[in-house]
Amino acid sequence: MRGSGYVIIGLGRFGSSLGKELVKLGYEVLGIDKDEEAVQEMSPYLTHAVVAECTDEEVMRSLGVRNFDCGVVAIGDDIQASILTTIQLKDLGVKRVVAKAISELHGRVLEKLGVDRVVYPERDMGIRVAHQLASPNLLDYIELSKDYTIAELTVPRGLDGKSLHDLNPRARFGCSIVAINKTKGVIIAPNAEEVLREKDVLVIIGTNDQIDKFEVAVNR
Amino acid sequence: MRGSGYVIIGLGRFGSSLGKELVKLGYEVLGIDKDEEAVQEMSPYLTHAVVAECTDEEVMRSLGVRNFDCGVVAIGDDIQASILTTIQLKDLGVKRVVAKAISELHGRVLEKLGVDRVVYPERDMGIRVAHQLASPNLLDYIELSKDYTIAELTVPRGLDGKSLHDLNPRARFGCSIVAINKTKGVIIAPNAEEVLREKDVLVIIGTNDQIDKFEVAVNR
Amino acid sequence: MRGSGYVIIGLGRFGSSLGKELVKLGYEVLGIDKDEEAVQEMSPYLTHAVVAECTDEEVMRSLGVRNFDCGVVAIGDDIQASILTTIQLKDLGVKRVVAKAISELHGRVLEKLGVDRVVYPERDMGIRVAHQLASPNLLDYIELSKDYTIAELTVPRGLDGKSLHDLNPRARFGCSIVAINKTKGVIIAPNAEEVLREKDVLVIIGTNDQIDKFEVAVNR
Amino acid sequence: MRGSGYVIIGLGRFGSSLGKELVKLGYEVLGIDKDEEAVQEMSPYLTHAVVAECTDEEVMRSLGVRNFDCGVVAIGDDIQASILTTIQLKDLGVKRVVAKAISELHGRVLEKLGVDRVVYPERDMGIRVAHQLASPNLLDYIELSKDYTIAELTVPRGLDGKSLHDLNPRARFGCSIVAINKTKGVIIAPNAEEVLREKDVLVIIGTNDQIDKFEVAVNR
Amino acid sequence: MRGSGYVIIGLGRFGSSLGKELVKLGYEVLGIDKDEEAVQEMSPYLTHAVVAECTDEEVMRSLGVRNFDCGVVAIGDDIQASILTTIQLKDLGVKRVVAKAISELHGRVLEKLGVDRVVYPERDMGIRVAHQLASPNLLDYIELSKDYTIAELTVPRGLDGKSLHDLNPRARFGCSIVAINKTKGVIIAPNAEEVLREKDVLVIIGTNDQIDKFEVAVNR
Amino acid sequence: MRGSGYVIIGLGRFGSSLGKELVKLGYEVLGIDKDEEAVQEMSPYLTHAVVAECTDEEVMRSLGVRNFDCGVVAIGDDIQASILTTIQLKDLGVKRVVAKAISELHGRVLEKLGVDRVVYPERDMGIRVAHQLASPNLLDYIELSKDYTIAELTVPRGLDGKSLHDLNPRARFGCSIVAINKTKGVIIAPNAEEVLREKDVLVIIGTNDQIDKFEVAVNR
Amino acid sequence: MRGSGYVIIGLGRFGSSLGKELVKLGYEVLGIDKDEEAVQEMSPYLTHAVVAECTDEEVMRSLGVRNFDCGVVAIGDDIQASILTTIQLKDLGVKRVVAKAISELHGRVLEKLGVDRVVYPERDMGIRVAHQLASPNLLDYIELSKDYTIAELTVPRGLDGKSLHDLNPRARFGCSIVAINKTKGVIIAPNAEEVLREKDVLVIIGTNDQIDKFEVAVNR
Amino acid sequence: MRGSGYVIIGLGRFGSSLGKELVKLGYEVLGIDKDEEAVQEMSPYLTHAVVAECTDEEVMRSLGVRNFDCGVVAIGDDIQASILTTIQLKDLGVKRVVAKAISELHGRVLEKLGVDRVVYPERDMGIRVAHQLASPNLLDYIELSKDYTIAELTVPRGLDGKSLHDLNPRARFGCSIVAINKTKGVIIAPNAEEVLREKDVLVIIGTNDQIDKFEVAVNR
Repeated sequence: MRGSGYVIIGLGRFGSSLGKELVKLGYEVLGIDKDEEAVQEMSPYLTHAVVAECTDEEVMRSLGVRNFDCGVVAIGDDIQASILTTIQLKDLGVKRVVAKAISELHGRVLEKLGVDRVVYPERDMGIRVAHQLASPNLLDYIELSKDYTIAELTVPRGLDGKSLHDLNPRARFGCSIVAINKTKGVIIAPNAEEVLREKDVLVIIGTNDQIDKFEVAVNR
Repeated sequence: MRGSGYVIIGLGRFGSSLGKELVKLGYEVLGIDKDEEAVQEMSPYLTHAVVAECTDEEVMRSLGVRNFDCGVVAIGDDIQASILTTIQLKDLGVKRVVAKAISELHGRVLEKLGVDRVVYPERDMGIRVAHQLASPNLLDYIELSKDYTIAELTVPRGLDGKSLHDLNPRARFGCSIVAINKTKGVIIAPNAEEVLREKDVLVIIGTNDQIDKFEVAVNR
Repeated sequence: MRGSGYVIIGLGRFGSSLGKELVKLGYEVLGIDKDEEAVQEMSPYLTHAVVAECTDEEVMRSLGVRNFDCGVVAIGDDIQASILTTIQLKDLGVKRVVAKAISELHGRVLEKLGVDRVVYPERDMGIRVAHQLASPNLLDYIELSKDYTIAELTVPRGLDGKSLHDLNPRARFGCSIVAINKTKGVIIAPNAEEVLREKDVLVIIGTNDQIDKFEVAVNR
Repeated sequence: MRGSGYVIIGLGRFGSSLGKELVKLGYEVLGIDKDEEAVQEMSPYLTHAVVAECTDEEVMRSLGVRNFDCGVVAIGDDIQASILTTIQLKDLGVKRVVAKAISELHGRVLEKLGVDRVVYPERDMGIRVAHQLASPNLLDYIELSKDYTIAELTVPRGLDGKSLHDLNPRARFGCSIVAINKTKGVIIAPNAEEVLREKDVLVIIGTNDQIDKFEVAVNR
Repeated sequence: MRGSGYVIIGLGRFGSSLGKELVKLGYEVLGIDKDEEAVQEMSPYLTHAVVAECTDEEVMRSLGVRNFDCGVVAIGDDIQASILTTIQLKDLGVKRVVAKAISELHGRVLEKLGVDRVVYPERDMGIRVAHQLASPNLLDYIELSKDYTIAELTVPRGLDGKSLHDLNPRARFGCSIVAINKTKGVIIAPNAEEVLREKDVLVIIGTNDQIDKFEVAVNR
Repeated sequence: MRGSGYVIIGLGRFGSSLGKELVKLGYEVLGIDKDEEAVQEMSPYLTHAVVAECTDEEVMRSLGVRNFDCGVVAIGDDIQASILTTIQLKDLGVKRVVAKAISELHGRVLEKLGVDRVVYPERDMGIRVAHQLASPNLLDYIELSKDYTIAELTVPRGLDGKSLHDLNPRARFGCSIVAINKTKGVIIAPNAEEVLREKDVLVIIGTNDQIDKFEVAVNR
Repeated sequence: MRGSGYVIIGLGRFGSSLGKELVKLGYEVLGIDKDEEAVQEMSPYLTHAVVAECTDEEVMRSLGVRNFDCGVVAIGDDIQASILTTIQLKDLGVKRVVAKAISELHGRVLEKLGVDRVVYPERDMGIRVAHQLASPNLLDYIELSKDYTIAELTVPRGLDGKSLHDLNPRARFGCSIVAINKTKGVIIAPNAEEVLREKDVLVIIGTNDQIDKFEVAVNR
Repeated sequence: MRGSGYVIIGLGRFGSSLGKELVKLGYEVLGIDKDEEAVQEMSPYLTHAVVAECTDEEVMRSLGVRNFDCGVVAIGDDIQASILTTIQLKDLGVKRVVAKAISELHGRVLEKLGVDRVVYPERDMGIRVAHQLASPNLLDYIELSKDYTIAELTVPRGLDGKSLHDLNPRARFGCSIVAINKTKGVIIAPNAEEVLREKDVLVIIGTNDQIDKFEVAVNR
């Protein structure tokens, strides 16, 4: 076990996925939900899973919630429960509190209550999928700043057999190839003789504009 | 306008966010929902937004859904509506169909119906947030393969004033600094004299293990 | 017991009737429904009857559903449950899967999922009853092709005492009497001297048009 | 138009299918349902379709229900509405009243009220499908008596190329071939030289036992 | 105990009151209701009271319902349950069946099912109270025929101290005093010297018209 | 029109029947109910019928409720509405207020509020029907006192052809025949030669005990 | 314990607060509510707390409700339960009955039932808060008559350091300082040399007009 | 009109009473509720009353809510609406925000959001009524500090005709008479000759203990 662990309140799709992944990463996770079925389903995957009403201070205290380093309020659609649970966690002295918001207004309340981080899973995922739909080669990306992005792109058929030297992205588009993921393994900072294959995946860094132009050119 | 556009069915939190972002990226987006309030709220942000029952073939046909390049079934919790809408889109001849699933089983049905891509927003976001919670410096990341990751990490206070040469990640941990995001701008492939500041953000590439060790070391 | 049996999911009016008849025909039948009352009512008539949630893969597996030759998804009005159960049966490897559909759209999804046969009980029964209402003498019929039908007709009062020779259907209408069901027994391929009685039932084969004309003539 | 027509009360799946088929057969059909959506959907298929509360005598009278030869009470699950509508039709003097029952008890009440024919669509269809499932070659059948059946059977691969003379069903099993449905057309009372092909369909008459034995033998 | 008793199905206000009174009159009464609370409340007043679903034939049989001389279907507002229970009682062979109806249509169905007597408690009580409100002195009455009534009337203040001779109803109005209920007891066929007091109650027989005139005159 | 009329609040089965009868008796009746359907149905039978919320003082005032001589609170099952409406009528100055109670407790509250008469239709009708069931010849009755009753009895078959002299009820049972209702008309104070017929109806007065004995004797 | 105690029916926010305070004042309190959760929550604070249906006479009797000096009907929104419980308490002979009303009409019914005191918590609190909002210095007040009030006012910053002699309220505004609440304690009938501090609280008596003028002047 | 007025959100019993009183005190009041009926009922009493959804920022803005000096969130039982409305008022820049809380937890959230004053009407009223019930002569009171109270007490019958000199509260109990409310008017700082009458009301100041003893003594 690593650290003192996480308590996750709300075992819906987001909370469940979060809890399972934290356990995989080696942390202790206590999952709490008022719905018995949800708890039962997650029981095999979490360190502990209990049915409890999280707006009841006595209950939270008796579950030892205050001993956890981090509390995650992952309650789905019930804004009232989300808010009341959040203030309980704060008042119990949980050091780090993360909460899921379902609207801007909800998020603003959570921030006023002193939540360390507000997450908007559906909104953020909507943005991410939009980019993936818009760029057919785009697998994933990190927005470094308003202008710069690192993008993970599949190599289109047209580039099969070409070397980086042929492609010359730096000179033609201004962006750099950071790595190539080939079936045999990841090549970091590849040199110019490296030949691309259709199933390879490129990691590229540059301004949004540079990457756009790169994509348009290679798909022509 | 770019291309022939997207039709998004279901304007919940995920669908709305997706639609808004596609419009920002310059695409035409038709949003459809059976709930009038949801449509009204999204109306200012999308190219078109209409109230319609998407399981009714006549309605879909009259909305010209077949003329869109890509259909996204973003229906929230109603599995039946999600499935029946999906088969309508396929039968109408929409070229690319993307659908949101809320469970493995749901996802398997969507795949059998020939959906091009099944997305699980809450599950994926749960995993992403788990990694961010587990690594206090981690802002975002791309999983390149089972082993390799690109991570965007805030510079901890302890590294303030140190140069890359001092840090020497390549030699000590095996991972490479791809870029540094500083307030003055992004520096790609920084050289060894570059000095880190507390608010800087590092982009680092390496195996999961290497990045883990790097994080532990710099936070000591 | 004959063969490896049938598992029927959904013990409504259609599923119950189907299950009872298969047991009468000598087969082993496992009936499953999530409604306890329905299961209890069918329990005396089926080989086994259990209360279970059929969209739960673990449950289906533990009931040994995969060992049955044929699975029938007879779920009434819940399209979602019908679809999710169907994909479970297919994925579990049940050889033959038959499913009840309540609409064309539902039927199309079931076919995409690889169902061997889709049945529409209410629609088919509506058609059958329509023919029986339209022809007052018609008891039952088989549509052999778009044109040909075998019909089972009661002998109208006006034919009482007449011989087949008198009636002469072949010459007058072009259709043939295949059999006569008399109180004393069924006469197959009756000869021309056979005399008809009011309570007799004729089995007649011919084109729809020939049978129509026959009916009109004998009822005059 | 043929005759004075049918009034169908209840436009669910059974009633809708019944109504459409009667219209196809050339009859005038008035469809009534209290649900506006159901009426709207059936409107293009029926002679008339109106939204009305059928337990209200005044309404029924004003719709001229008494002028129809035959009334069909096809109300789905609401036993009370089914019974009250039935007595209305009887009291209004409709000559023939047919009603759908969903249970034995319901059927007994309908009979006491003087209904001419009680139908049990789901029960009857369950029985029919059971026989079809049990005999893989069985397409359809008519039960002539407790013992005798006419069955429509697909020709199994093993019989491809055999003549009726080879098959000799009369001598071997006691049953007779009444007709063969071949792609080129239906052959009534085929002679012994007729050769069977895999896609042909046989119409066979005999006792249940004879037909069973025939099926088992030809499938071996 | 007198006779073989009554079974009352439905322990609402009417059924409860009926049951209690029959017990007071010396009869054995079995009360049945599907609502546990209703049964518990009536339990101290009836010979037996059980919770049961009365539309289930097996249940009715096991309760020995057929052994009762008379069954009363006193089910409140659920017409379906009332009808299905009634046919059960008839089919079980209960000799006399009485049923409560809540509308004319309901009553007509009950009569068709062979009910011996249909009662309309609220309708009948409405009529009775109407007459009592309309005639301020009227306590109760029996309608003997379309014309004749026996009425129980309080003596108005104006008649206090008058003798029957003074009043002379026979000669003046045509109606007769059958009895006087005085505090000391009931006087049947009182003679002319009898003096009326304000608290006395008269029992009077005559045509509706005669009694009306009598009332108007004595209240003047 | 007679008098200033009645206002009836609550047009359920009891209130409707009461209202219709008062109109038949020649009174003006205003019916009020919050349910539009109930009002519409009663509209043809009452002088006025309006949809209104009776607990709203302004509404009651604007309807001129205070101008009616008598108000009847015939509200079915909603005790709160019954009580609040009653106090409105009293406060508005309606002279006579009659209210329907559904339980003893409800009745006690109504009395405390100064209601002139509390009626219990279902309870009273239950008692009345109990007596009719218990005495097969009893058609109707008036309870004069704890001991004395006037009963209306059908003549049993055994008395057919007997004269009152033969029967001699006075001497044998102590009770008197007040009248005989024969098909030809009502005979008041019949003399001893009058002969009874099976379809005649006797009106008899006496103690409960005397009438009981009379009934037992004549039915032997 | 003081006296024979209080029974409080209804443990909502008002009833709970009332009960807790009476216990603090040294009285025995029995709390009753039909909601188990409410009872459980109040159990630690009251002498006794039981779950019971208060409209059931038997239950109330068995709880010994009649032995309490005072009954408080604190039922929240259910007017019917409030009324029926009130009449139970009165009929059981509870000496003093206090009841909460939620509307004028409700209050009038309670008074007719003989309640000793009707309270309107939300209405009264609304009035009190209105005065506090309107006068920024007003903490609390007692309305002595239509004209005179005692007010508890915070000392505004402008009066800090002034003596009562400087302020001279009697001469300037006509009102008198009854007491000053200073951090060191309450000074009753303070003399003219007393110096005011910003955190002091004044108790002042006078007409509404005088106090208004005083407030306006000292806040200038 | 005085000042810039109040906006009250939530027109339940508390909000309505508050609004009416503020209007009486001469202020402009805008009342908002999402329930049309509540708004309609309050419309005659407030300066403005509108139906609106208060969690919608646009709506609040368009109503000019920001122009009011003080906002009162008087929403009854919906904690979520209360919180979201509160943050809207704060974000719109309303200077003073007062909010009603229904539980401690709710109150804590409101305080975190920066509410100027949290009120608990039912809790406070419960405490106030408790004191009034406990002291039969107590009409009203102000708690000056933990120890000191000003109480308004009715004069008990035993003191009728006694002078303050006879009563001598200062010497006997330590508390002082501040004023006497007599039918003829309020006497402030009465002198020792003043004679008490049974209907007079005393205003007395002292420690809780002194007032308790005073009450016990005068009621003996």
